[in-house]
Amino acid sequence: MVDTKDQGPYYRISDTKNADLLRERQSATFDVEELTQFMFAGPNNYFNVNIRRQITRQAYAYPIHKTHLPLEYLDSDEYYSVVIRKSFAGVKEAERLNITNKKYRDWFLNIFCGGKFAFQLHTSMFIHTLETLASDEQKEKFLPLARSFQIIGTYAQTELGHGSNLQRLETEAVFDRTTDSFILNMPTLTATKFWPGALGQSSNYVLLMAQLYAPDRHHPCGLQMFFVQIRDLKTHLPLPGKIACSVWLDYSELFLGVEVGEISTRFFHEAGDNGYLRLTNVRIPRNQMLTKLAYVDEQGTFHRLADPRLLYGAMLATRVNLCAFFALLLARAVTIAVRYSAVRRQGQTPSGKETLIIDYPLQQDKLVPCIASTYAFFYSFMKLENLRAQILDGDTILFDRLAELHAVSSGLKAYSSGIAERFSQICRVACGGHGYLVASGIKPVNNMLDAGCTYEGDNAVLFQQTARFLVKAIQKDDDEMNIDSSIAYLFSTKPAPAAIVDLDDYCRLFECRSQMLLKSISNRLMESSSPSSTPHDIFVKNSIELVHVAKAYIETFVLRALYDGVRKALGHNSLALVFEQLFHVFAIHTLRNQAADFIRLKLLTAEQVYQLETYSLPDMYNRLRPNLVTLVDGFDFHDNELNSCLGRYDGQVYEALMERARLNPTNQHKVHPIWTSIRQNPTSKL
Amino acid sequence: MVDTKDQGPYYRISDTKNADLLRERQSATFDVEELTQFMFAGPNNYFNVNIRRQITRQAYAYPIHKTHLPLEYLDSDEYYSVVIRKSFAGVKEAERLNITNKKYRDWFLNIFCGGKFAFQLHTSMFIHTLETLASDEQKEKFLPLARSFQIIGTYAQTELGHGSNLQRLETEAVFDRTTDSFILNMPTLTATKFWPGALGQSSNYVLLMAQLYAPDRHHPCGLQMFFVQIRDLKTHLPLPGKIACSVWLDYSELFLGVEVGEISTRFFHEAGDNGYLRLTNVRIPRNQMLTKLAYVDEQGTFHRLADPRLLYGAMLATRVNLCAFFALLLARAVTIAVRYSAVRRQGQTPSGKETLIIDYPLQQDKLVPCIASTYAFFYSFMKLENLRAQILDGDTILFDRLAELHAVSSGLKAYSSGIAERFSQICRVACGGHGYLVASGIKPVNNMLDAGCTYEGDNAVLFQQTARFLVKAIQKDDDEMNIDSSIAYLFSTKPAPAAIVDLDDYCRLFECRSQMLLKSISNRLMESSSPSSTPHDIFVKNSIELVHVAKAYIETFVLRALYDGVRKALGHNSLALVFEQLFHVFAIHTLRNQAADFIRLKLLTAEQVYQLETYSLPDMYNRLRPNLVTLVDGFDFHDNELNSCLGRYDGQVYEALMERARLNPTNQHKVHPIWTSIRQNPTSKL
Repeated sequence: MVDTKDQGPYYRISDTKNADLLRERQSATFDVEELTQFMFAGPNNYFNVNIRRQITRQAYAYPIHKTHLPLEYLDSDEYYSVVIRKSFAGVKEAERLNITNKKYRDWFLNIFCGGKFAFQLHTSMFIHTLETLASDEQKEKFLPLARSFQIIGTYAQTELGHGSNLQRLETEAVFDRTTDSFILNMPTLTATKFWPGALGQSSNYVLLMAQLYAPDRHHPCGLQMFFVQIRDLKTHLPLPGKIACSVWLDYSELFLGVEVGEISTRFFHEAGDNGYLRLTNVRIPRNQMLTKLAYVDEQGTFHRLADPRLLYGAMLATRVNLCAFFALLLARAVTIAVRYSAVRRQGQTPSGKETLIIDYPLQQDKLVPCIASTYAFFYSFMKLENLRAQILDGDTILFDRLAELHAVSSGLKAYSSGIAERFSQICRVACGGHGYLVASGIKPVNNMLDAGCTYEGDNAVLFQQTARFLVKAIQKDDDEMNIDSSIAYLFSTKPAPAAIVDLDDYCRLFECRSQMLLKSISNRLMESSSPSSTPHDIFVKNSIELVHVAKAYIETFVLRALYDGVRKALGHNSLALVFEQLFHVFAIHTLRNQAADFIRLKLLTAEQVYQLETYSLPDMYNRLRPNLVTLVDGFDFHDNELNSCLGRYDGQVYEALMERARLNPTNQHKVHPIWTSIRQNPTSKL
Repeated sequence: MVDTKDQGPYYRISDTKNADLLRERQSATFDVEELTQFMFAGPNNYFNVNIRRQITRQAYAYPIHKTHLPLEYLDSDEYYSVVIRKSFAGVKEAERLNITNKKYRDWFLNIFCGGKFAFQLHTSMFIHTLETLASDEQKEKFLPLARSFQIIGTYAQTELGHGSNLQRLETEAVFDRTTDSFILNMPTLTATKFWPGALGQSSNYVLLMAQLYAPDRHHPCGLQMFFVQIRDLKTHLPLPGKIACSVWLDYSELFLGVEVGEISTRFFHEAGDNGYLRLTNVRIPRNQMLTKLAYVDEQGTFHRLADPRLLYGAMLATRVNLCAFFALLLARAVTIAVRYSAVRRQGQTPSGKETLIIDYPLQQDKLVPCIASTYAFFYSFMKLENLRAQILDGDTILFDRLAELHAVSSGLKAYSSGIAERFSQICRVACGGHGYLVASGIKPVNNMLDAGCTYEGDNAVLFQQTARFLVKAIQKDDDEMNIDSSIAYLFSTKPAPAAIVDLDDYCRLFECRSQMLLKSISNRLMESSSPSSTPHDIFVKNSIELVHVAKAYIETFVLRALYDGVRKALGHNSLALVFEQLFHVFAIHTLRNQAADFIRLKLLTAEQVYQLETYSLPDMYNRLRPNLVTLVDGFDFHDNELNSCLGRYDGQVYEALMERARLNPTNQHKVHPIWTSIRQNPTSKL
């Protein structure tokens, strides 16, 4: 097990070489370590920073990290090889270090591989799904092979023609009684599995989501999960035809037709070897359907065993964790942008003094709301994670509150990926041209967040699910509402605050707005109900506004989460004031973007909003100014994690940029070969 | 010369294979060719679509385009070689076809090279600057060499430590009377030239922006442009030490110390071989300073010859053209997203029918404002281009209106790149996961637009320049204002419209808002003036609001430009109504994002804004629905230009995606070499 002893942050060991950054750090009104411990440590804190530091040190101590050029200089074959090498080395090293706790092991592997652990889907979705949906007998067979990496698997759900709408997946598994097996096919081009990570080159097994037909192809039984081999375990070749099945020994010969490959280039490799898969008349034994929830007997009769909502467990847990991931990505982007802004100078006063760009109000208007939102997202995630722990813990599920967890996690995933994508692009712009280099560390983050707006549920679809839950809740008007519930305020009759006196008044304003918007749309939906239009039609027709209502609810959730954070900080004298200032920034920034709502609903006047954004907000920027660098230092990133020339802790930005440029392999030829060939054959046709 | 005969659009020659797209096209209420001719043809139309079609056909007829894999599959060396080969082949082919008109030649080369013509900066900035800033004698020497591509040059301005603030550039040219030459140096690391396109591998000359010191290093004379060789013309080797200067024969030996290379990876190669350059004690003859505006005589005395504002001509022309470029990029993104949305199905009605995603209001709320904005940006560019032609035409410059051209072009560049970046990401999201493939054609566009927010002037800096102009203008209160001026309305005393009756009322609302915001900030600036704070301090302090005021002015400019377009369309019965609908969408969409202004200034009530966005806007989406595909077809892109599996004219999206995936070179090995090595040495340490 990992030693949990706190060895302090990494940067204590290196000097601050840049005088500007040193001054910034000295100007802080609080101790950065107190902030880090407050935010990211403590008995139930998900982030457990002290263990994380220990793990980080262990991961970076391994010599493999110095054996290759920065990843942006590798071609796709070299890149893939490095990632696979590192991933296996990481697995072995985690074993050697005896890191057995699942969460810490995931962290270790992720850090070890620079965020590019090739078997991420294997160790999370694949194994988790086996643990959840396989029968005891299946677990006994499959899990040891998977845990020892003899089987490397992925989760094959998305198809070329179908993403969010699972009901329409086309891959089929037809029961064949004569051979007691399923015959797998992708009857159309659009049924091709497309996008699953690690499918292109790495996996030898997949968990295949397919439409089950049993006892024959005229009887659809809905989506089921199948355990399917696609590559030979020894040669790693795609299974071509008749081969021995090496796992399920009852069936010594299976006919398989597998076409598998990598899809075309995604943005800058970030996503792993996403692949496509076509199966033609692939036969698997009957007991390779995962049978915890349902099974098919020898006669081909389909039996349900358990609540199919168990299926959602893995998906929900993944979605919750994504909210932490997005907050961490945004924290990386803003750490880089703030540190760079405290080093970069541009423009000058009439007296000829060059200005640090962090001193410009326009730059602060980019960065400070981003810092405040990052803290807000960390708190929202922790609040969501608490909710998850109450409602969904392994096999223990409170079914009556599952809908709420689904609604909050869907909405927060959509909201935080969308906002973080936007902010990370603003951080890119805040770093000027240098932000456009891969070596800035920001563009890659921006690309990952952009992808996050789509994967694990398109944001527009997710917001609608949140809205559907809210409309149902308000129409039910549940008197026995749990007062801890995130929707309790929807039933409150407390009036809106007449003026903003304390922080709770902001929360109340947002709650009133959320409540009023929801009531109004709910009434409209009920009034529109008529024999000529179905509820579905009415919902679709009002979907733009429904998404807006869902966002208003999530904004309220996030603001309240940050509010709880401020209250927690009250116990820390030096932090309390800073958290209050961050709260003001987040509240006013969010409010000004939604000003029309607050004004129309008479919660604020247009003049009040104008005063808040024109005077209060820049005033908060000023107050926070001495603490900006320390507020991002508090996120406690190791320089290796940031992988950024601009965001280095020591501020040696220009040295790093030149060093990275000189490493560019292209610069090894003084004259690029194409020019040699042109100069030698000036009249060639090229 | 190119044959200008109209051969009609490309797609007439291919069938529409996709029934959905065919139906979309049949549902249009106007003829697509009429739209294209209306928007992009006509005697003074910048886009001259009929010649463009001719050029496009000629460019794609050349066989080189089939000699390589899609560019995303090439490693950086192969990629660069293909780009250089194509660029030279394109130059030769343009010569063979006798395309001599500069604009058409640029188009041809750009299309021929798939937007990646390697010598873009050479044929534009480099040659243009020589034409503008070189003396007659210098032109006679340099231009023939440049035009024949013996010299290939770029424009070296940006430094590692300095971008927008030219005054602070550190590269220096010190006059040395004893040798009648300048000694060039980069005295610091941050003085390194960094970012210039085509500098890394391709250019053998640069136009170097440097601080002149003459007669000696104690006498700064400001920024001047120097003509500097960096690579040998025969071997293409960076000039190492003493070598013969092959251009300026008066000086047979020059001491040169050049370090040149490519900077680290930018996002996906889009930007060409951006480079860095360090010069150490490089000596160039006195007459390699460009001397149209100023020169240094033999004694080292500095003489001004002409208005230094001539320097801005090239920069302004570039900025104006960028506005066309951004509009075209956005048009590409939205063409792809709209066509894909008319092919892709997702979700279903309770009756089990799958829905085309273009039929969802939420999807329309993404796409239709984007279509409307694209048309608005085309019209704004054309309006700006007219202004440019009036004010700045080669050496003829109306100096008294130059400030207005500077203000409008700065603001429109900033506004259109920012909005287009945003919309292109929305288009990416509108295409779901597939939009994340390079082969979608959208992510590359999004990346180019993101870069456009920074290059040729950081958007925040540009908006401030627009604001500075506006404040000056309103404080001068010019009675003799040209009524054609884009700021004439600022002096109007016409009251705001009491209700929105016709389209002009929208324009008047925006004009009133712009005027009121400007007057208010202008008053504030004057009131804040005090002995203790300089005008600079006051401007910086109010910069957030000043940028807002500049945006309001540009929004008004864009809306008015679109209004003029609607009026032009009145002559085309079938188009008139559609353009009116687009105007409504753009006006309401823009207005809802700025609602707080309109409400606070009492130009609209909150309820009016709510009605507009909740009812009028979706109503317009419905009316435009039959024309959405045809509205993007009207942009007349060739499939090769879009380079998109999702946006193909024929709608064969899934076939294209699979074909592209199968082309991935990784799929040539059935087993990736790293797996062979792992399987053969399972116990190796990797």
